[in-house]
Amino acid sequence: MKQTAIALAIASLSTLTATAGTVTSDGADIVIKTNGGFEAKTTDGLYSFKVGGRIQADYNDYDGVINAVPGESGSDAFFRRARLEVKGHAKDWGYLMSYNLTSGGSIDQLHTTYTGWGKLANLTVGQQKENFGLDDTGSSNWTTAIERALPANAFDAGNNLGIKLHGANDLLSYSVGAFKTGIDSDNDLDSALTGRFVVRPYLDGGNVVHLGIGATRRDGVAADYNSRLGARGGEDGTGAGRVRARIANTLGDREDYNLEAAANLGPFHVMAEYFDGEIDVDGVGATIEADGYYLQAGWVLTGESRGYKTDIAAFDGVKPASAGGAWELFARFDALDVANPAPISVAGEKADSITLGVNWYLNSLVKVSLNYVDVGTDRAIGGEDEGDALLARLQVAF
Amino acid sequence: MKQTAIALAIASLSTLTATAGTVTSDGADIVIKTNGGFEAKTTDGLYSFKVGGRIQADYNDYDGVINAVPGESGSDAFFRRARLEVKGHAKDWGYLMSYNLTSGGSIDQLHTTYTGWGKLANLTVGQQKENFGLDDTGSSNWTTAIERALPANAFDAGNNLGIKLHGANDLLSYSVGAFKTGIDSDNDLDSALTGRFVVRPYLDGGNVVHLGIGATRRDGVAADYNSRLGARGGEDGTGAGRVRARIANTLGDREDYNLEAAANLGPFHVMAEYFDGEIDVDGVGATIEADGYYLQAGWVLTGESRGYKTDIAAFDGVKPASAGGAWELFARFDALDVANPAPISVAGEKADSITLGVNWYLNSLVKVSLNYVDVGTDRAIGGEDEGDALLARLQVAF
Amino acid sequence: MKQTAIALAIASLSTLTATAGTVTSDGADIVIKTNGGFEAKTTDGLYSFKVGGRIQADYNDYDGVINAVPGESGSDAFFRRARLEVKGHAKDWGYLMSYNLTSGGSIDQLHTTYTGWGKLANLTVGQQKENFGLDDTGSSNWTTAIERALPANAFDAGNNLGIKLHGANDLLSYSVGAFKTGIDSDNDLDSALTGRFVVRPYLDGGNVVHLGIGATRRDGVAADYNSRLGARGGEDGTGAGRVRARIANTLGDREDYNLEAAANLGPFHVMAEYFDGEIDVDGVGATIEADGYYLQAGWVLTGESRGYKTDIAAFDGVKPASAGGAWELFARFDALDVANPAPISVAGEKADSITLGVNWYLNSLVKVSLNYVDVGTDRAIGGEDEGDALLARLQVAF
Repeated sequence: MKQTAIALAIASLSTLTATAGTVTSDGADIVIKTNGGFEAKTTDGLYSFKVGGRIQADYNDYDGVINAVPGESGSDAFFRRARLEVKGHAKDWGYLMSYNLTSGGSIDQLHTTYTGWGKLANLTVGQQKENFGLDDTGSSNWTTAIERALPANAFDAGNNLGIKLHGANDLLSYSVGAFKTGIDSDNDLDSALTGRFVVRPYLDGGNVVHLGIGATRRDGVAADYNSRLGARGGEDGTGAGRVRARIANTLGDREDYNLEAAANLGPFHVMAEYFDGEIDVDGVGATIEADGYYLQAGWVLTGESRGYKTDIAAFDGVKPASAGGAWELFARFDALDVANPAPISVAGEKADSITLGVNWYLNSLVKVSLNYVDVGTDRAIGGEDEGDALLARLQVAF
Repeated sequence: MKQTAIALAIASLSTLTATAGTVTSDGADIVIKTNGGFEAKTTDGLYSFKVGGRIQADYNDYDGVINAVPGESGSDAFFRRARLEVKGHAKDWGYLMSYNLTSGGSIDQLHTTYTGWGKLANLTVGQQKENFGLDDTGSSNWTTAIERALPANAFDAGNNLGIKLHGANDLLSYSVGAFKTGIDSDNDLDSALTGRFVVRPYLDGGNVVHLGIGATRRDGVAADYNSRLGARGGEDGTGAGRVRARIANTLGDREDYNLEAAANLGPFHVMAEYFDGEIDVDGVGATIEADGYYLQAGWVLTGESRGYKTDIAAFDGVKPASAGGAWELFARFDALDVANPAPISVAGEKADSITLGVNWYLNSLVKVSLNYVDVGTDRAIGGEDEGDALLARLQVAF
Repeated sequence: MKQTAIALAIASLSTLTATAGTVTSDGADIVIKTNGGFEAKTTDGLYSFKVGGRIQADYNDYDGVINAVPGESGSDAFFRRARLEVKGHAKDWGYLMSYNLTSGGSIDQLHTTYTGWGKLANLTVGQQKENFGLDDTGSSNWTTAIERALPANAFDAGNNLGIKLHGANDLLSYSVGAFKTGIDSDNDLDSALTGRFVVRPYLDGGNVVHLGIGATRRDGVAADYNSRLGARGGEDGTGAGRVRARIANTLGDREDYNLEAAANLGPFHVMAEYFDGEIDVDGVGATIEADGYYLQAGWVLTGESRGYKTDIAAFDGVKPASAGGAWELFARFDALDVANPAPISVAGEKADSITLGVNWYLNSLVKVSLNYVDVGTDRAIGGEDEGDALLARLQVAF
């Protein structure tokens, strides 16, 4: 009886082999995975490879001060982001290629990371996030609102080529790096120094209390603080108006600071940031100042928690627990002040916005978002000082 | 005896494990496939991932009215298309990223499809084909001729960002969608509505009779009907002349209609389309009219049938049955009439072409095509009203 | 006892199946591999697929005649190359897609190769290397110096669209091809004919003696010989000065010749090339002449040998034998002479450079290089006739 069972088991194995080919590796054992993208890694953890991507298809409808054409309302459908991502690692070296497919193609991130010194000291070389601010450091896939906050947009350090030392444990995360900001008229490199430090007095599963500070000093950058008013307004962003303080065609040395605070408790989260900065404009004797803050609160109605990644000290997505997906409501208040005396040209002076929104995390691949944004400025831009916008996004991230 | 056989089977399994690593999945069973590209899918059908691409390396030699330089003959070697394609699905959501590598890079198609309502109602959101016309809806890999017909070129709706509901069963296929055509001077979205309906009175394996109608209404588009004359003439298409009716630097609202008929019976196929359209030019009081048709017949000498896909209601490739590949002969007659009164500027007025060609489908990866095109126009363009062209293509599609 | 062992074996197989899914193929047996990239091939050798890429993150610091801004020193951090590569084959047809992610995206190589006639006669169609010169034919991943030699830069035939017959055995390698150089004012194709022949009087494992000759005749090309002076000077290369002879805005027919000699004996290698060429400038009655050579010697301190590929007759990388990686020292002397009489405009006349460098091959993925370059020109460019540069590279190639 037992022998027959064994024979049947062997027979069924043979049948399987007859109708389908085997798949083996030429070295270490490999585990592969597809849930839309593709991943292969050796079971000894020494090697891995992954192909992924993201598609963010947006619709924006906006009027008043948000539309760059005074007295009119605007609308657009466009890809906010579309990226192909390839990453992997071999022993102590990892790499990431993230390529923007939009606007004719450009490098989003392209870097290699040395991980041989342990989790408290990773070294990343290449084009990467500078890690300045909580909203800006988190992935664009998992920001709660469709667009980042007004001050996060104005003070965004962007993705730049450089070298960054960064590490984390459960209690703290840090990053400090030097980055290229441009090339001066002698073909010489201008650079930025950027650091961030985050402490987590409380971390337990999905629950976290997060406090952080950041600073960046940037040489040879445009003498310009500006932010969109809650709506992108098209793939190239030219559809939407901006609050702005600048002296056109000048460069300067810029110093920005920020404070971050956030807490995630079960399905609820709150987060807030304050930013303050100034630009010493080269050879003009003027200083451009700007500051701003935002407050955000969210509630996952279906009970899931937002993810949180200690390595970058930022929030991640919501993983739906049931077949109906996860639903999240949130509200955010943004403020940005770019008021400055002449000879600095200023648009809007001070902007406030309220953003209300809902996110539907359908499954591991798809997220649908709907946001309403109401904006006001202290001084009219093109004859208007108020506007509102409806933003919708369909996101596929694999 | 039986025990020994089992022991040997186990032993050989162990030997295999010793010389080559195992490959397992971290969840559902996975089947992988490579025949040049790469594909992984779970056996439960819930997830898949595929990397593919296409390379179309063309040589064009052409003279007379086809060459954009009057009185000279022209030639060029170029990539007609080169694309990297990544696609996959997770449960009820699929996605496709198809990126043009030519001309500095651009998005060909980029979309996500919801398939949860069944085959009769798929919803695709993103940059996609509008599905207007049989020749234009089929894949560029599997058009019978190297270049699509004159009227198919003139009336092509292109790939645009939008939303499309589409479905099919054995008897019928349909698609209806709304697409972005541009942004007006107020930053407001201009759009197109496009629909297509196909019925198959006969469908039996590779045999099919196909009848279809289509319509598209397009706001805010260029006041321009034009078509190349059977040859692309270089990667950017500027080498080749065009028949054209337009009022330069104006926009209009355009309405186009088409009729499709095709039959595939064993190795033989015939197909024909008729197109008719007009553009109401904004603020000029003029209407530009155009119409055209083509007739095509083909014969796969080696006996295979052209494939046909009901989901897009269009022809697919020929799969060679023997090691020598499949050979196909075809002929096509095209006519396009863009004659219009002043103030519309017209080149060529009416164009006719005959295309004769042979396709060699070598294997699952490679196709070689050779086409001869003879063109005439009613009115001379640059002093010439006749021309012919020799087109050759080497295609790799994985 | 034996039965129990078998039962346990079966049981453990079942356990494996319970905790991890199976991976099978839908046809031939497949072997997969990841060591940072990803590869799948059928065990019968009929099909394969591979995703790879390269990242070269450079830092350049240079002064004097090398900096394009006279009297200043320059520096830059930039991606020298960043590419995503997909390749595969189906039976007798292979393909390669290599896409430059830098500077907005462009095709590096894109071609298909027919291998059905055996190793002595492969036919490659598409955008590819012309194979002219030893330094230029080798992969940019595995050049010994960070930048190729001055004459190799001046006489580089580049990657072009065309058709090339090439083959190799242990004794010899050859390639001969026709390539597109441009399109003339009649839309007609201008082309180049390029051939190379290499003989290996000695080949034994890692040891090789290599002798080669090459020639290229190029119609309709810029009337211009030029070379950077040992440093790229930024992603677009505009930061660095050049030695140059040309008649601006003219085209000509160009003929270049080269001689190659190299030997690799255990950890030591020497290589040298001589180049000579001239351009008959169209309609001017002038001929631009240029010639140059370089001598290079290297020593892998840790004892490994440089790889050598007979199919392209060029050197490959060094595979580190131990966990500490492989270390290589090298020196190179370059000379390039572009002195020419009026009406030819000449910068620098003659340039010499010495390059000293060290390469650290950390593992299969990562290489770190540091080069020092000292350059002099016979005639001053922008008031300077000397300069030196420090170049550093972090390379990830998967």
